[in-house]
Amino acid sequence: MNRRVTLASRPVGFPQESDFGLEDAPIPIPETGEVLVRNLWVSVDPYQRGRMSEARSYARSLELGDVVTAQALGEVVESRDGRYEPGDLVVGQLGWQDYAAARGGSLRRVADGLDPPTLALHAVGATGLTAYFGLLDVAKPKPGDTVVVSGAAGAVGQIVGQIAKLAGCRTVGIAGGPEKAGYLRDLYGYDAAIDYKDGDVRAALKEACPAGVDVYFDNVGGEITNAVIPRLNVGACIAVCGQISQYNLERPEPGPGFVFTIVFRARVQGFLVSDYAHRYDEAATRLARWVAEGKIRWREDVTEGLENAPRAFIGMLNGENQGKALVKVADPTK
Amino acid sequence: MNRRVTLASRPVGFPQESDFGLEDAPIPIPETGEVLVRNLWVSVDPYQRGRMSEARSYARSLELGDVVTAQALGEVVESRDGRYEPGDLVVGQLGWQDYAAARGGSLRRVADGLDPPTLALHAVGATGLTAYFGLLDVAKPKPGDTVVVSGAAGAVGQIVGQIAKLAGCRTVGIAGGPEKAGYLRDLYGYDAAIDYKDGDVRAALKEACPAGVDVYFDNVGGEITNAVIPRLNVGACIAVCGQISQYNLERPEPGPGFVFTIVFRARVQGFLVSDYAHRYDEAATRLARWVAEGKIRWREDVTEGLENAPRAFIGMLNGENQGKALVKVADPTK
Repeated sequence: MNRRVTLASRPVGFPQESDFGLEDAPIPIPETGEVLVRNLWVSVDPYQRGRMSEARSYARSLELGDVVTAQALGEVVESRDGRYEPGDLVVGQLGWQDYAAARGGSLRRVADGLDPPTLALHAVGATGLTAYFGLLDVAKPKPGDTVVVSGAAGAVGQIVGQIAKLAGCRTVGIAGGPEKAGYLRDLYGYDAAIDYKDGDVRAALKEACPAGVDVYFDNVGGEITNAVIPRLNVGACIAVCGQISQYNLERPEPGPGFVFTIVFRARVQGFLVSDYAHRYDEAATRLARWVAEGKIRWREDVTEGLENAPRAFIGMLNGENQGKALVKVADPTK
Repeated sequence: MNRRVTLASRPVGFPQESDFGLEDAPIPIPETGEVLVRNLWVSVDPYQRGRMSEARSYARSLELGDVVTAQALGEVVESRDGRYEPGDLVVGQLGWQDYAAARGGSLRRVADGLDPPTLALHAVGATGLTAYFGLLDVAKPKPGDTVVVSGAAGAVGQIVGQIAKLAGCRTVGIAGGPEKAGYLRDLYGYDAAIDYKDGDVRAALKEACPAGVDVYFDNVGGEITNAVIPRLNVGACIAVCGQISQYNLERPEPGPGFVFTIVFRARVQGFLVSDYAHRYDEAATRLARWVAEGKIRWREDVTEGLENAPRAFIGMLNGENQGKALVKVADPTK
């Protein structure tokens, strides 16, 4: 049988475990051109929250009863697409479930030798690509720029700061709690780390950014973003990657008025990694090399068991994860 | 004697005439390298409001007692800079006063034959340049794009829509009142005009922008901007030129949260025309040609008498002007 985690009710505000269902269904039968995948790992990401609401967004909302949208890494069990054969490791939008049948063209093969393969779900996958394109193509920092990252110990943030270092920037990370702040400095190489739960973020930013802020890579929004804005330099860029502080509010908080964009001649730019799909290979190759060379370090935050995906998701929204939140569903066959 | 309009007190909220003083002072004596200019026209612009507050901005605040900062057009009375001689018409930051001594290098000569010369204060001067660079260099519309302009009947707005038409765009102007809306359609050639004082702006935008909004050239901010955002297309640009709805508020209203930038992958970009000073000649030459050819039309809203500059300024902040607000100070000598 195929266990599936479904959307049982639309979360009102912060999601509860009761908003999700766990059900058994038959293992799907792949049609011509499809591949049956047995999921080994499923991903837990902030964007999933948006799919659970009815509000207009960049992707269609889930219907009640749908399997929760998620990236997953699995092994091919049966292939009706000539490009894949049983045993291949693939990544795709396979959902929170044990098995999925998917068009072969919608899958990406995990590169041989990628160790661990789960890197294809983060540092060398979606969140790494998000960091890569958001920093290098949207924000476009110059060597010597000060780059501030919010949510810096999260899945995207842990990578952004390290790419910014490779690009010759000074990096300042913001995260919640002393443990995360420690990783920012000691594992991810941030030049300065700010624990927003400890004291005055505005004062800490002023001290950490004596030459102002040239790039702000924003994963969180809200009060932290409001604290960064007064430190912007003329011509600064805010790359808007995520706004996790807002996703669980019934009414999102208003933002800063646009007067700040005039004063700082700032550029505020939203983006989605999927806009860069035609360049995934280029970026994934570089990310894999940087990881192999130890230039990009990463952490995974693993929850065991598909049935615990909702709990992992809620914990991630609460900022409880250290690095990329993943759920381990099964061991590989061999 | 030299009459000067000074800042008597910092406006609290909306400026009052009592916030300004009118005083007599000796006519200044130009030093070496300076030029004595007799002002004929002084300009009235929204940015002046920012100089009257102490809040951090892109330019230094006025001190109490200072002559109010303003662009002016005048004739050279005495020159200690070899590039100018008496009778020359010049434009510069000369302030709300009858006479000013200024460095020759800070002045721009009014092009021979510019008719009327006051064009150098608007369509072929600062507000025209603001429209030119804000639209073509910041927003960068493509032919066929839908360009929405707020404050469309104002000094910058009246020019933006016409440049957008020259660039092959569909133009939608927003202004207050039926008379302004009529000018948008009949004089400035907007494809659609929205009177925000008449009915539901959101519904009017929906009807006027069936293909969504690619560029929003924002002069006003606030509620009108909030009404435009849901109509943005993916990849749209908001060029933030002004936020006149906010300048007289004790506490500026909050803006939309940044979630919209992710949903629409929007770019919100602030700018100042002075960032493009090295390209003024290029743009002024084109603007002058377009005006001469009748491709750009314009209106002036003239108030007579230097002593009435504060009233003209307050009226402009109230949206009472039709086109560029100017104050006529004196007739030319010959």
